[in-house]
Amino acid sequence: MTDLTSLFSPKSVAIVGASKSPGKIGNVIVKNMISCGYKGKVFPINPKEPEIEGLSCYPSVDKTPEPAEMAVLAVPAARSLEIAEMCGKSGVKHLVAITAGFKETGKEGLELERKLLDTCRNFKMRLLGPNCVGLMDTHTPINASFAAGYPLEGEIAFISQSGAMVLSILDWSFRAGLGFSKFVSLGNKADLTEAHFIEDAAEDPNTKVILCYIEDVEDGSHFLEVARRAVKKKPIIILKSGISQAGAQAASSHTGALAGSDLAYETAFRQCGIIRAREMSELFDLAVAFAKQPVPRSNRVAVVTNSGGPGIIATDSIEQKNLAMARFTKETIDALRERLPAEANIYNPVDVLGDAKADRFRFSLEKVLADPGVDSAVVLVCPTAVTEPRETARAMLDMRRTYPDKPVFAAFMGGEKLAEGIETLAQAQIPCFTFPEPAITSISGMANYGRIRDMPEEQEQLSFPDLDLKTVKATLFDIKRDNRLVLLGSEAAEIVSAYGIPAVPTFLANSPEEAAEFAEQAGFPVVLKIASPQIMHKTDVGGVKIGLSSRDEVSKGFIEIMDNVHRYLPRVVLYGVEVQKMMPKGVELIIGVTRDVQFGPLIAFGLGGIYVNLLKDVAFRLANGLVTKEIEKMISETRAYTLLRGYRGEKPSDINAVVDTIGRVAKLVTDFPEITEMDINPAFAYSQGISALDVKITIS
Amino acid sequence: MTDLTSLFSPKSVAIVGASKSPGKIGNVIVKNMISCGYKGKVFPINPKEPEIEGLSCYPSVDKTPEPAEMAVLAVPAARSLEIAEMCGKSGVKHLVAITAGFKETGKEGLELERKLLDTCRNFKMRLLGPNCVGLMDTHTPINASFAAGYPLEGEIAFISQSGAMVLSILDWSFRAGLGFSKFVSLGNKADLTEAHFIEDAAEDPNTKVILCYIEDVEDGSHFLEVARRAVKKKPIIILKSGISQAGAQAASSHTGALAGSDLAYETAFRQCGIIRAREMSELFDLAVAFAKQPVPRSNRVAVVTNSGGPGIIATDSIEQKNLAMARFTKETIDALRERLPAEANIYNPVDVLGDAKADRFRFSLEKVLADPGVDSAVVLVCPTAVTEPRETARAMLDMRRTYPDKPVFAAFMGGEKLAEGIETLAQAQIPCFTFPEPAITSISGMANYGRIRDMPEEQEQLSFPDLDLKTVKATLFDIKRDNRLVLLGSEAAEIVSAYGIPAVPTFLANSPEEAAEFAEQAGFPVVLKIASPQIMHKTDVGGVKIGLSSRDEVSKGFIEIMDNVHRYLPRVVLYGVEVQKMMPKGVELIIGVTRDVQFGPLIAFGLGGIYVNLLKDVAFRLANGLVTKEIEKMISETRAYTLLRGYRGEKPSDINAVVDTIGRVAKLVTDFPEITEMDINPAFAYSQGISALDVKITIS
Repeated sequence: MTDLTSLFSPKSVAIVGASKSPGKIGNVIVKNMISCGYKGKVFPINPKEPEIEGLSCYPSVDKTPEPAEMAVLAVPAARSLEIAEMCGKSGVKHLVAITAGFKETGKEGLELERKLLDTCRNFKMRLLGPNCVGLMDTHTPINASFAAGYPLEGEIAFISQSGAMVLSILDWSFRAGLGFSKFVSLGNKADLTEAHFIEDAAEDPNTKVILCYIEDVEDGSHFLEVARRAVKKKPIIILKSGISQAGAQAASSHTGALAGSDLAYETAFRQCGIIRAREMSELFDLAVAFAKQPVPRSNRVAVVTNSGGPGIIATDSIEQKNLAMARFTKETIDALRERLPAEANIYNPVDVLGDAKADRFRFSLEKVLADPGVDSAVVLVCPTAVTEPRETARAMLDMRRTYPDKPVFAAFMGGEKLAEGIETLAQAQIPCFTFPEPAITSISGMANYGRIRDMPEEQEQLSFPDLDLKTVKATLFDIKRDNRLVLLGSEAAEIVSAYGIPAVPTFLANSPEEAAEFAEQAGFPVVLKIASPQIMHKTDVGGVKIGLSSRDEVSKGFIEIMDNVHRYLPRVVLYGVEVQKMMPKGVELIIGVTRDVQFGPLIAFGLGGIYVNLLKDVAFRLANGLVTKEIEKMISETRAYTLLRGYRGEKPSDINAVVDTIGRVAKLVTDFPEITEMDINPAFAYSQGISALDVKITIS
Repeated sequence: MTDLTSLFSPKSVAIVGASKSPGKIGNVIVKNMISCGYKGKVFPINPKEPEIEGLSCYPSVDKTPEPAEMAVLAVPAARSLEIAEMCGKSGVKHLVAITAGFKETGKEGLELERKLLDTCRNFKMRLLGPNCVGLMDTHTPINASFAAGYPLEGEIAFISQSGAMVLSILDWSFRAGLGFSKFVSLGNKADLTEAHFIEDAAEDPNTKVILCYIEDVEDGSHFLEVARRAVKKKPIIILKSGISQAGAQAASSHTGALAGSDLAYETAFRQCGIIRAREMSELFDLAVAFAKQPVPRSNRVAVVTNSGGPGIIATDSIEQKNLAMARFTKETIDALRERLPAEANIYNPVDVLGDAKADRFRFSLEKVLADPGVDSAVVLVCPTAVTEPRETARAMLDMRRTYPDKPVFAAFMGGEKLAEGIETLAQAQIPCFTFPEPAITSISGMANYGRIRDMPEEQEQLSFPDLDLKTVKATLFDIKRDNRLVLLGSEAAEIVSAYGIPAVPTFLANSPEEAAEFAEQAGFPVVLKIASPQIMHKTDVGGVKIGLSSRDEVSKGFIEIMDNVHRYLPRVVLYGVEVQKMMPKGVELIIGVTRDVQFGPLIAFGLGGIYVNLLKDVAFRLANGLVTKEIEKMISETRAYTLLRGYRGEKPSDINAVVDTIGRVAKLVTDFPEITEMDINPAFAYSQGISALDVKITIS
């Protein structure tokens, strides 16, 4: 784990490019360091000034009275290398490069950025930025940034790839009354990335929740490794933008076509338990929820309301957001019945009626929170003539204290008439919204996190005792020597077979006679398929014949296929015709692999056959860190699962064999990064075992 | 159309149950009528008081100096009939029954409500409520409600089934600075329903947008008729709650099982062009958008931002919400290039950079709004050191005036530092949000409405010249006499054939010999199917045999089927075995019908076959008002459409025949309300024509 102590709480900080001119970045940083109450030493560096903002100024980093532990760079990009070198020599451990003019400006900037990183690495200095706003930590305290303002102290760490977002959120947070533990502006992420700061925040005793805005992830496997561990300690909520920048992903395989550009991120986040915020408001609603409230034990929500309509809206939202309406025990219902008016609804949602004062809310909330079948509660208040908003808010605060393990949210649906209640809640630990839905969304995110956090970790990685790497290597060697990127069916079958995947034996025939001969060996009936790495959809060009049950049919079939394909695709190189024993029909599946630049192989599973792109019944997982339980979950997310379990009286299929095959595919493409894409389509699942009928593999 | 003039702007209003005691409903209403500035005459009615709030009080409704045009009832429910009778006799035209204690309290209350309605009908009085908050119209002005407060004048009509929601939104609206034309609390909807008020608001010159909160619709066909016309004039946005109250819909047919309880509402709203808000915040964001902004011509959005990150977030949101990023003309791009700094992004989203003052925003916004390829614009402002929020806001207002046909939205992402800009916008015609996404959601709703409004109306209803109603009636007559609710396949085939739907002729055989005989008539090969109204899934019980190509196979098949079914379902009554000519394989479709209590027959179309419930590839439309274009749209929403157009080299199917068949099904179930459920599954579509292979019909 990277030690960021001297970044967030250094004993001394040098500000290179410090300035006397108000408004200049080099001036703002000095002021920020002073005004935040930083307890270490600040050394403004400027050869032309004796002092800045009351602090002694030094001509260069190597002239400070003691070596600076951290240095902030606010000099022109052109001077950054020289300064970084000097910092390194003087023993600086962390460099915060505010300076812009690097990668973001084009090729020359990128070159400069690489050199800056090299310099840092030479001196074992870690680098934040360049091209960033800087960082803050309210608990150190430190404000090594040029942001105008300093956040309220709090327990939210906000890590942002966008500097403007840091400025926006900081400014907005004062109005929202939101406190932060850390603010980190990542900039160009030349060295330190989101992963480093997530890892650090997960260990930070002052941080309860980790918030990120990112546009990409720098190092996929490092990110996954860090995030998997970190979510067990603290919730990580990420807003990832850039969904629409449809990375022009080559879609030569079924799996590739099914996997959109955003899919790898979506899968990665889900697989390591990161909560993905869909909108900015959701990011911050969740941040507040986690900062202020305990994580609910499970997903059962109680609603207390003084009006029917909002109660129904909350109920709808609870069902839509994967939560459940709590069912009360008999004791709870009896207690509510005894005390509430006869017209009140004593089941969930509890309707204390429009004429309810605070006491009814207090009583009902107490009863539902005491109920062991309730994990969280939402209180909905409409302004009627008798509503007591402040007292109702106080009742909620009392109940939060009495039941500290159960989160309580509020929707105070109104303005002036409820203002006192809204203020009371804002100052305390209960998030209050105008409408019910965001409260439910917050609970849903929390319940979701609780489930992820408490899931027992399956440590054991996929391992298989019987893999024949040698055969795979030898086959790939031949293909590379042949200068091909797409494997023949027979080659692909050989490779997967070497990894214990039961591919149907496939013979490559070069003449009608050879085909007939192979067919006899394999046993009738057989299937013939054109062999050509250039043809993806063989059926579409008349390149497939099924159910041939004699030597004669086979040799005729050979000729017809060659004729068909020549007619459709006169210029395509044909390798002959593949002969395969015809398998009995099973549940038709696809198991595929595509490769993401950041996160590596992405495994697809779902309904197979020629309609795979039409049906789009596919679930995805990253091969990285894939465990058996995840494979089972992946299968269960598809409609294919319904078929596998035995649909409408059919025998159940051998799901273990499917799990095993997916695991072996994941292992194969992890062991052989040369394999860029792969489709097993179809694979037939039987009540005993599985068969891979058609295997396509592309290498790089 | 119902005339509501004397409800919203009566010449005189009697308040029955007026009171002197502050806080009492009868007192609040009198005060509200006075303080809102109502210009007609107010007659408080109370036999014990000479005057109330300075107005002369009258002992009863028939003792007022002139007949009241409208009367507000604030008396106990028990007295309501007597008062209503007296109102009727005195010539009151509209009754607003605030009084509670009716349907909402149970059976007796329901009885009382029916009597109240009868009384009103006797005197041709229209009734709002009972059990409501009342109504307001800021343009009359009138406030015949007990709400504490009176809305700002505005152009939003808000119609609510929940009284509490009226109080909440009213209170909240002052903070939000939102004005309303009307507030209507529907109460129990004994007489006047949402449809009446939607119809009225559509004609109201002071209303620009119609907002509803409803939990159900009272009269489905009236609602549809009204809404279809109204949306051509004004946007209707509805929040419909109660989605989760999973109406225990009997799911005996495929179609029934596929249609959830909320589906009829969803379909009805979509089919008549109502915008459905998913959350309360969306309801009001859209209201503001429509009230303040013009409807965009189309869906092309320009983004102007001073920061990259928010620009990407907006771009994502635009793609997700069915909008498009505008592509600028060469002129626009050249102009932006000439004036903006070299590092600025001059394509969409336009990034004017963090050091932009108001002038760069002004210039860029002007250029993009002038571009003919831009229909709307969003301006994103992050607070940097040099941001000029007020001037930027003013630039936006100026541009709104210069380009009055193009809506402009803002996201001012910050707090104090942007406050002046936010205030400037709040006072004017530009909705301003904290984050970009709700701005995009609002534009999306507006663009969606624009498309609906401008769609040429297809007046022509479905009509077919060749329908044989007599056969349908005769067949249904026989079945009813037989006391059956489920038709045999042969009967169902006869009925649909009478409506011109090409069902495969089906013969009911009672013996192996008969089956063989029929098979010979139909022509080999044939299909045999068990005939029993009690068996839904015939394949699952061994009740189906296909591809029988001789008399011998048929008679053996007959016996096997009877044996199978007897073994599986020993107690089920069997009618024999149906013999059907085996049809060549086509694209397998389902065309089904289920019936909704409010909206009548709901037509389903999608991929058919035994996997229909697994694949769930089904689109729905109401038969009510269904036109050919909607049927075509319905087909195009399914994956079946991809197959019908000819998937992977297959011949295209006869889509016209599919459209025709769906139309005939809709006509059949509209003409015969006795048909409660129907499944044609499968129907085979061919390159020429269509065949209904298996038709199931249930009647009531």
